[in-house]
Amino acid sequence: MRFGVLGTGMVGHTIATKLISLGHEVTMGSRRAGNDKAAAWAAQAGESAHEGSFAGAASFGEVVVNATAGTASLDALAAAEEKNLTGKVLIDVANPLDSSTGMPPRLTVANTDSLGERIQRQFPDARVVKALNTMNCEVMVDPSRVPGSHSVFLCGNDQSAKADVRALLETFGWPAGSILDLGDLSAARGMEMYLPLWLRIFGALGTGRFNIALVRDAQ
Amino acid sequence: MRFGVLGTGMVGHTIATKLISLGHEVTMGSRRAGNDKAAAWAAQAGESAHEGSFAGAASFGEVVVNATAGTASLDALAAAEEKNLTGKVLIDVANPLDSSTGMPPRLTVANTDSLGERIQRQFPDARVVKALNTMNCEVMVDPSRVPGSHSVFLCGNDQSAKADVRALLETFGWPAGSILDLGDLSAARGMEMYLPLWLRIFGALGTGRFNIALVRDAQ
Repeated sequence: MRFGVLGTGMVGHTIATKLISLGHEVTMGSRRAGNDKAAAWAAQAGESAHEGSFAGAASFGEVVVNATAGTASLDALAAAEEKNLTGKVLIDVANPLDSSTGMPPRLTVANTDSLGERIQRQFPDARVVKALNTMNCEVMVDPSRVPGSHSVFLCGNDQSAKADVRALLETFGWPAGSILDLGDLSAARGMEMYLPLWLRIFGALGTGRFNIALVRDAQ
Repeated sequence: MRFGVLGTGMVGHTIATKLISLGHEVTMGSRRAGNDKAAAWAAQAGESAHEGSFAGAASFGEVVVNATAGTASLDALAAAEEKNLTGKVLIDVANPLDSSTGMPPRLTVANTDSLGERIQRQFPDARVVKALNTMNCEVMVDPSRVPGSHSVFLCGNDQSAKADVRALLETFGWPAGSILDLGDLSAARGMEMYLPLWLRIFGALGTGRFNIALVRDAQ
């Protein structure tokens, strides 16, 4: 399958590399085609790896992954152009964290709205699924980095898009029973608002290689 | 030990009952002494159970538990009177959730501040520890309601107050290794901002008898 991965940071790099390893074709998109980091990635990631502008990557992908910094995501997606997103599954893994006013970063949207919902409103014909934003990118693409069973959440308004993302997560190594559908895209609020807790846990543990496992009664 | 438990709702009732079962003396506080729910609780909970005003309960307790609704906590603590909180461990289990504008409830404070911090600012001589707010009250006082190991967080600015709360949590049944200190009281932001995710997980699972377990790499 063809993927457009928007973003050349650690998250985009990690997801793009994983997709290549699974046999997919990937174009990594950035503000301008020829971006150093994207070109370096494409040069070493093999024949199925390409780079281009946000619009080039989105146009290329049958599925588009938003792995840009959350504070830049709406601009990046605007640059990707609405026509290149229409009808496509758009996996939003970004968190709207702003560290420009110091640490810890704060969420630029929270409580009554979310980045996932803003993206969906701005691109009503994209099929936005929020997923994977609640963990380190190494864990996203290789859940075995953390021992035992632990959880990944997804949400979105389009059932078949969520089914597609669920299937993709399973190819990443997520057991079906570890993937929890939280419902419509408004659950992105909770998924994004978890980040301040994630950051404090990260600080307390001194590693990003952790995740949360949902544990429940036996019913 | 003597505890003042502020709040007559399910959380206050559950914590107060647990404290009695552990051999403590408890006064359940409410807006006015003689509150029906507090009186009913005290009548059936044994000789160590009392009820009174917020001030009466806070005055009684060597440790005070804020189990009021988060939107009412600052008023309740003001009624409890600063002099009755001075120097005491004040365990804040409340969440500033407001459902007055419909469901889902939203946080009345988030991101750059928290209820825990507001309480600490308003009562600088209380030793505020945020704890237990990330789960159902049944699980708070009886972690075995959820199978296996799972996590409880605490934070606060006073190390010895956190040590006291940690010891109390152990008597509730929390293994030492399941209690994670997230640092100073600003971690209350993350602990409170987890609630929107908790609510969505609750909706997806159809039960409040769940918790999250931190799972990490072997180091």
